[in-house]
Amino acid sequence: MYLDRKPIKVHEAIEAVLQFTQTGKIEYIPIDESDNRYLKAPIRADHDIPPFDRSPLDGFAVRANDTKLATREKPIELEVIETVGAGGLAKQVPQQGQAIRIMTGAKMPAGTDAIVMFELTKEIERDGKTYIEIKRSFKPGDNISFQAEETRTGDILVNSGRQVDPGVKALLATFGYSKVPVAKKPVVGVYATGTELLDVHQPLEPGKIRNSNSYMVTSQISKAGAIPKYYGKLVDDFDHCYEAVANALDEVDVLITTGGVSVGDFDYLPAIYEKLGANVLFNKIGMRPGSVTTVAEYKGKLLFGLSGNPSACYVGFELLVRPWIHHFIGSDKPHLQIVQGVLKADFPKPNPFVRFIRSKMTIEEGKIFAEPVGLDKSGVVTSLANSDALVVLPGGTRGYKKGDVVDVLLLNGEGGKDIIKIGAV
Amino acid sequence: MYLDRKPIKVHEAIEAVLQFTQTGKIEYIPIDESDNRYLKAPIRADHDIPPFDRSPLDGFAVRANDTKLATREKPIELEVIETVGAGGLAKQVPQQGQAIRIMTGAKMPAGTDAIVMFELTKEIERDGKTYIEIKRSFKPGDNISFQAEETRTGDILVNSGRQVDPGVKALLATFGYSKVPVAKKPVVGVYATGTELLDVHQPLEPGKIRNSNSYMVTSQISKAGAIPKYYGKLVDDFDHCYEAVANALDEVDVLITTGGVSVGDFDYLPAIYEKLGANVLFNKIGMRPGSVTTVAEYKGKLLFGLSGNPSACYVGFELLVRPWIHHFIGSDKPHLQIVQGVLKADFPKPNPFVRFIRSKMTIEEGKIFAEPVGLDKSGVVTSLANSDALVVLPGGTRGYKKGDVVDVLLLNGEGGKDIIKIGAV
Repeated sequence: MYLDRKPIKVHEAIEAVLQFTQTGKIEYIPIDESDNRYLKAPIRADHDIPPFDRSPLDGFAVRANDTKLATREKPIELEVIETVGAGGLAKQVPQQGQAIRIMTGAKMPAGTDAIVMFELTKEIERDGKTYIEIKRSFKPGDNISFQAEETRTGDILVNSGRQVDPGVKALLATFGYSKVPVAKKPVVGVYATGTELLDVHQPLEPGKIRNSNSYMVTSQISKAGAIPKYYGKLVDDFDHCYEAVANALDEVDVLITTGGVSVGDFDYLPAIYEKLGANVLFNKIGMRPGSVTTVAEYKGKLLFGLSGNPSACYVGFELLVRPWIHHFIGSDKPHLQIVQGVLKADFPKPNPFVRFIRSKMTIEEGKIFAEPVGLDKSGVVTSLANSDALVVLPGGTRGYKKGDVVDVLLLNGEGGKDIIKIGAV
Repeated sequence: MYLDRKPIKVHEAIEAVLQFTQTGKIEYIPIDESDNRYLKAPIRADHDIPPFDRSPLDGFAVRANDTKLATREKPIELEVIETVGAGGLAKQVPQQGQAIRIMTGAKMPAGTDAIVMFELTKEIERDGKTYIEIKRSFKPGDNISFQAEETRTGDILVNSGRQVDPGVKALLATFGYSKVPVAKKPVVGVYATGTELLDVHQPLEPGKIRNSNSYMVTSQISKAGAIPKYYGKLVDDFDHCYEAVANALDEVDVLITTGGVSVGDFDYLPAIYEKLGANVLFNKIGMRPGSVTTVAEYKGKLLFGLSGNPSACYVGFELLVRPWIHHFIGSDKPHLQIVQGVLKADFPKPNPFVRFIRSKMTIEEGKIFAEPVGLDKSGVVTSLANSDALVVLPGGTRGYKKGDVVDVLLLNGEGGKDIIKIGAV
């Protein structure tokens, strides 16, 4: 079956998937639980920042005019009539020759128009009163943080689609978002196929291996911002497989299967798509690894048939499933970020198809470098654990040399806006 | 109080903190819950990979010797006696002229020593038997994934100190880690100080602002890999403050306070440290923002007195608290990663002290750039939300120009091994 599959280009596969994006509904969650979620509405200032003219220092609020004649030789004295701390309000209005002791963040007292920092004053006690000595003049407005100088009521401070991080959270708190509008997470189902698969707690048996893809993919799903729902292994019997897939589809937003899409005798997925009446968007991509990656659509829901090979499974997820999830949650950077980097080692193999090579990214003297990790044989699970980037070598190219500039997809970080356009078959 | 504080250098402050690191105990958690945790033991291969000689393709397992004379002109025929899928084992041993149909991942049947892929064969049915025609010769070992060619039993695949990501998780599953040894997370307490602070759900009042630091810092704590425990606001009364801090210290691994470390009349922290009998490691750092950042030690536990100014609070956490947490959880990269980048805008202010400027990092043509975000006035919470890096300008320097190469601390990503050594006062 499908021995004569026709490969499409990587970007065509991504575009085909993005025809079936959905948009997650808005939900309001407590600010305490909002870390890493994606904003579904912009953050708007509900007040000016600063909300009032305030002192940015510990010092004295004065009438600038009173200090006009102050010099080192002829210092002036002001009477301190009151102390106001941050959060407090002055009770008195200073008259000529009077000042108010004021702490950082406190509202400017009425009648004052400059702040003199502690360090520039000398305090004097006399007749039960406190005075400060000032040796220079101040202008109206000196050392004041003015209302709205940072932000004005109604300003949009962070756009919809941003992920909540500590800085964004500070803004949410500042503007009173005790409930935060975020996109609901999609539920992504996972079924593994393969009679050879043992569960993680099972001892090894001849001919069998432990199921690593399901753990890897559920971790990728969480990292991408969705909720994984692992259904276990598909059994060998075709009818059971068909039932299982059809039932799971009812409960999830998209369904991932790992394995079962190649040309082996027990690769049931193509037949399941057919029996479902699903629309197969493509069943071959001109890339390595992951050429057998298949995506089908049934009643608007996508079925991602990822390869059973761990590297191919990983790459298929990042190229195709990640952007789908990120569209759902409203991220403004749904794709992997693509940058240019210098290859740190030779890669002599020719590339009949576009090739994604697991690599370790480093930054040296301000420049990006990428070093292929491990053998990069299909199935080398060990190198996945040591890579944080994929070097992309276009199809139809010969080997690459150390020092060549190549495209690099970053597996961590904020992602990118652009579809990977490399990938001529 | 403390008007005559003596500033120390940034790296001296970090080193002082690291004298009091602790090591988190090991705990074993289910693999499903291990995302983003830090490994407390290396991952060791409990078996070879591949665990047995296996077929990397869908095809036929043959005796290479049988194909010796096969040519395009004189193809040979082999009888297919059995089919073995991945996870299955062949029941028969092929004799001369016999082959076994085999699926990707299946164990090599005894007696066979090469794999011929489907595409290079033609199947023939004759007299109720199946034969394949082969038009070329194969050598022993052709198309076999040999046992242990990737990894040998006992190999260390990932070192202690690594954070679990999807690739690491695949390895954990492969090698049967149904329970994963990780470092316990430290509990980091947070108290906010400041009469001016309203909670996020409270309406604004004259002279008051909402408490953003606590939300920001708890988010930073979670992101750094620890458990935040927010205690609320310290009340105004000194004795109450003292009791609250002393009690909290019993329940946490370290305690962060925000605000209250400056020279204002209501900055109680210095007096609290004194009454506790805590050892003040430093109470001034030669840096902007965050010069008043204070750290004290009491019975081996650290009290981080971060500034109440949001930017200063943020920077103080990332420079000092983050490495403490990362040491506790055994991370091999406790500090912020420091790289070189090109300044994308002028920064004309002189820098009497080392300055950390909130910035946005970009990668263009393989090079790192950093652009200062917003005004960068102390207290500008809005720019925190749009920065993912800190540009570091050494103390004692004049303004910097667009195009200058500067040090850049990356706020996201895996971190770095080295203490920030910049920071001459």
